[in-house]
Amino acid sequence: MSIITVIGSGAMGSAMSFPAKTNGHIVRLVGTKLDREIIDHARESGFHTGLKRFLPDGVELFYLEELKSALSGVDLIISGVSSFGVEWFCKDILTLLPKNIPVLSVTKGMFNDIDGSLISFPSYYSRLMPDMDFCAIGGPCTSYELADHDNTCVGFCGNNLKSLEMCKELLETQYYNISLTTDVEGFEFAVAMKNAYAMAVTLALGLSLKDGDIIHYNSQAALFGQSIREMRKLLALYNYSESNIDFAAGDLYVTVFGGRTRKIGTLLGMGHNLKNALDELNGITLESVVIAERTSKAILTCIEKGKTSKTDFPLLLHIYDIITNDAPVNIPWKDFC
Amino acid sequence: MSIITVIGSGAMGSAMSFPAKTNGHIVRLVGTKLDREIIDHARESGFHTGLKRFLPDGVELFYLEELKSALSGVDLIISGVSSFGVEWFCKDILTLLPKNIPVLSVTKGMFNDIDGSLISFPSYYSRLMPDMDFCAIGGPCTSYELADHDNTCVGFCGNNLKSLEMCKELLETQYYNISLTTDVEGFEFAVAMKNAYAMAVTLALGLSLKDGDIIHYNSQAALFGQSIREMRKLLALYNYSESNIDFAAGDLYVTVFGGRTRKIGTLLGMGHNLKNALDELNGITLESVVIAERTSKAILTCIEKGKTSKTDFPLLLHIYDIITNDAPVNIPWKDFC
Repeated sequence: MSIITVIGSGAMGSAMSFPAKTNGHIVRLVGTKLDREIIDHARESGFHTGLKRFLPDGVELFYLEELKSALSGVDLIISGVSSFGVEWFCKDILTLLPKNIPVLSVTKGMFNDIDGSLISFPSYYSRLMPDMDFCAIGGPCTSYELADHDNTCVGFCGNNLKSLEMCKELLETQYYNISLTTDVEGFEFAVAMKNAYAMAVTLALGLSLKDGDIIHYNSQAALFGQSIREMRKLLALYNYSESNIDFAAGDLYVTVFGGRTRKIGTLLGMGHNLKNALDELNGITLESVVIAERTSKAILTCIEKGKTSKTDFPLLLHIYDIITNDAPVNIPWKDFC
Repeated sequence: MSIITVIGSGAMGSAMSFPAKTNGHIVRLVGTKLDREIIDHARESGFHTGLKRFLPDGVELFYLEELKSALSGVDLIISGVSSFGVEWFCKDILTLLPKNIPVLSVTKGMFNDIDGSLISFPSYYSRLMPDMDFCAIGGPCTSYELADHDNTCVGFCGNNLKSLEMCKELLETQYYNISLTTDVEGFEFAVAMKNAYAMAVTLALGLSLKDGDIIHYNSQAALFGQSIREMRKLLALYNYSESNIDFAAGDLYVTVFGGRTRKIGTLLGMGHNLKNALDELNGITLESVVIAERTSKAILTCIEKGKTSKTDFPLLLHIYDIITNDAPVNIPWKDFC
């Protein structure tokens, strides 16, 4: 039995308490400042309002100001913040963490580095705290279904295989299956890209719905195939292992069917511009949009430098045009052939 | 304006009349002996009972005994038979066709060759008629949605680029987008394999439904990712270009959501054995089952010869065990990691 402290009680961070509790660990869930109501509610009833599930029995709940006691004797720290919380996490939290304990991050996405390239969050953290050990989770896993013990296969990436093996030992269950990889940048890049492409595939839903009430699959599948093609080219462009496409493909599949990215892609496909689409989703800032922007910017930098051609990425660049220039949806089908 | 004769008036063959008619060609649709009722009905009302759509205006309908006149002055022949009709097509039809006209096949699947390996239908036809020119269609395209002009991207493969270019010129429309490849075996192998894996992915649907009424996506996505992993390994094993995975991925996606393969995978996942599952589908023989058997047999031959290991293909071999040995569904999740 180990002690696992999750910082950030959003849906994904909180869902990690399910495999951790299945394995009998002590789990401490710490809300950020934005999570106060979630913690209040869960303390009262055990119900997680974001996850819409009862948390496993025995999960200990903490407010942020109780972080110190939540970290007492900890064996593994899970960062449950979204990509929008990364800078706060770096500024306010990182320095408070014990240096010798691995941090496993559920955060999806990457940053644009100073030179326009992309950098994974584990590498970004490592720059700030070179002595600490950062790992990250990617691959197909929606929080709701993890809470429901639906089977899945995820990947844990990190530079230190020993830490990865410890994370796997603590968290692998019958339903939560874990592969390990030390290819941090390649893996994080692959599972970040899929957010941009999930928007692209779900444009087809909007186009179908605009024309009638029938959901078609040929057009979704054609966009899915083109997404795989472009993601493979992106991996090759950065000299990352092509095998990362396996996780990207699974993750793309689940994201096409999951939540807000599907909704935003559908609304864009129906003809809304990004602002209207986000308004329909109550103005939330969407990770997929940010990831699509960042990936596209990195590719545009590569194109400027002559390292690749825009003809290799017609779908990604169309998404970029839609979300940054309010371009109307006009899938460049002929450019896929 | 050209003359295009489609032999076999099943759903997919008949759906090819839509892009052909969009482009203003003369289209002659010839029913096989099994298609007599379809032709009868379509002659009366224009309605195709299999496709459940009205055929485009002006499609000319023929019984098999009228084949000779249907072939008069033809520019392109499309073989619309299913894989179960291939032997009949070879025996009774091939020799009747003009030798200088390309044949474009919609048939999915491959044969096991004498040595246990797989051979594509175009190559099989070429052995019988070495002077004729055979091409084939693969990639995501359900017949219903092609008839509805839903956008898609397919591939045409063949040894003769000139013939491929002619096929593309005759059939490409705004909604039917065509890539060309001369990698016949690699392409046909990729788009055949996906039938076996579509059964595998849809096992997750059955497992979800057995446990409750909720469709989960984590488990589907994990199986989808593993399918991509194994299909990439299969392409590598046979020294086919890995880029064929793009078509396989799109085709897998559409097959997971289309028709009978989805139903059979779901029923198997719910705990039916193959016989019961096929009985539920009125005892039809399913192409996906045959393709899964043939692909697995080819892989088992490779394993026997020491060319690969069964640990590389846990999902395919589990499917094989389910459909040939009535093995209970027990997804080998840990073998994926």
